[in-house]
Amino acid sequence: MSTDLSYVKALTFDVFGTVVDWRSSIIKELNSFGESKGIIADWEAFADKWRGGYAPAMDQVRKGEIPWTNIDELHRMVLDRLLNEFEITDLSEDEKVHLNKAWHRLAPWPDSVEGLSRLKQKFIIATLSNGNISLLVNMAKHSGLPWDVILSSELARHYKTDKEVYMKALSLLDLRPEDLMMCAAHQDDLLAAQALGLKTAYISRPLEFGPECKNDATDDMPFDIIANDIVDLAEKLGT
Amino acid sequence: MSTDLSYVKALTFDVFGTVVDWRSSIIKELNSFGESKGIIADWEAFADKWRGGYAPAMDQVRKGEIPWTNIDELHRMVLDRLLNEFEITDLSEDEKVHLNKAWHRLAPWPDSVEGLSRLKQKFIIATLSNGNISLLVNMAKHSGLPWDVILSSELARHYKTDKEVYMKALSLLDLRPEDLMMCAAHQDDLLAAQALGLKTAYISRPLEFGPECKNDATDDMPFDIIANDIVDLAEKLGT
Repeated sequence: MSTDLSYVKALTFDVFGTVVDWRSSIIKELNSFGESKGIIADWEAFADKWRGGYAPAMDQVRKGEIPWTNIDELHRMVLDRLLNEFEITDLSEDEKVHLNKAWHRLAPWPDSVEGLSRLKQKFIIATLSNGNISLLVNMAKHSGLPWDVILSSELARHYKTDKEVYMKALSLLDLRPEDLMMCAAHQDDLLAAQALGLKTAYISRPLEFGPECKNDATDDMPFDIIANDIVDLAEKLGT
Repeated sequence: MSTDLSYVKALTFDVFGTVVDWRSSIIKELNSFGESKGIIADWEAFADKWRGGYAPAMDQVRKGEIPWTNIDELHRMVLDRLLNEFEITDLSEDEKVHLNKAWHRLAPWPDSVEGLSRLKQKFIIATLSNGNISLLVNMAKHSGLPWDVILSSELARHYKTDKEVYMKALSLLDLRPEDLMMCAAHQDDLLAAQALGLKTAYISRPLEFGPECKNDATDDMPFDIIANDIVDLAEKLGT
């Protein structure tokens, strides 16, 4: 790789899918919730539909069809619709709040904590997620993610891949684009960052959407680093 | 103390003076800078004037006399004025930038890292400082301050003690006022938080302004906790 990465001072990470395994975590939470309530349902389908409802909901915010709404609230909107669709009707408000906060309790991929801890020795490591700040803080406490700073779309009141999100990160960290590397398992996120001059690292997460879905990776990805996981990223960045 | 602190989930800390010893750190940086450049000056007076210029500069922002300007920029405005006043005229731009970033390299009080590490076991620990985000991140890296999340007046584009700063912290952490405790060595900061329903902890820092200045503490302080330092705060909160 001939790209000059010598200016990179900070790494911003996408979180859902890149750092944490949302699908297994949500299925596990739903299974355990179902058992405790004696509800039988296709929880894998429920999890995929919950996640699937999130992109269109963010799009409504992006297009101005609804005012700024954070991810906790978007997750709740989708949850309420799914509970109706799955005919799960007898939950208390506290139970719904607890279930919605399953997204605050997502487990990291096995390499994430080690990889981030190594990277933290040399770089500022930050989230740059569409998740809201409180969700990201609770998740970090729950899973031992050693962030230096929690950055979120919520601070720009725009969702990735809107450019305002990456520009807010540059502004708050007081860095030039070439000082910052965006790290994600999703090409669209990295392409948006790259268009602003940020450095980019693709992190392969072939199981993000389950064993039956195809990988986001392609053969000709134009990123500065292609890593198998976050420990591999740490290796490739010399930490 | 009969106050009910059982709801407290997060602690937000003032930083300059409360967590770090800005005065000794800045005097040390100025002395070492002076030695390297062969400049003799009253660096204690320089440090006190640098800090002293900061409150009036924030006031100009509060009153709308100048647009939003972060602390790095306010520190630089004051620095340029003082270099002129002290007749120090031959500095390069890089030297001025480095000197201004002395505020990113402030050393913690001896109890701060231990106290924060203990509190982090039980609570979310956050900055809530007038310092900008990049300053607070660099300081945390430099001094090993184990924050869960970096919050700053910069996110509200208002300076403490404006209420918008505390309300932004509540909103981003998704907490009710009784869930959050403001911790500071300055009564005005705590009184502003208390007026919004936050819990409050006063941390005594008698040496903040040097051995010859009087303590901010008074006999009848109306705060939930009065602590000798951050380790004492950890003790009093059972961590």
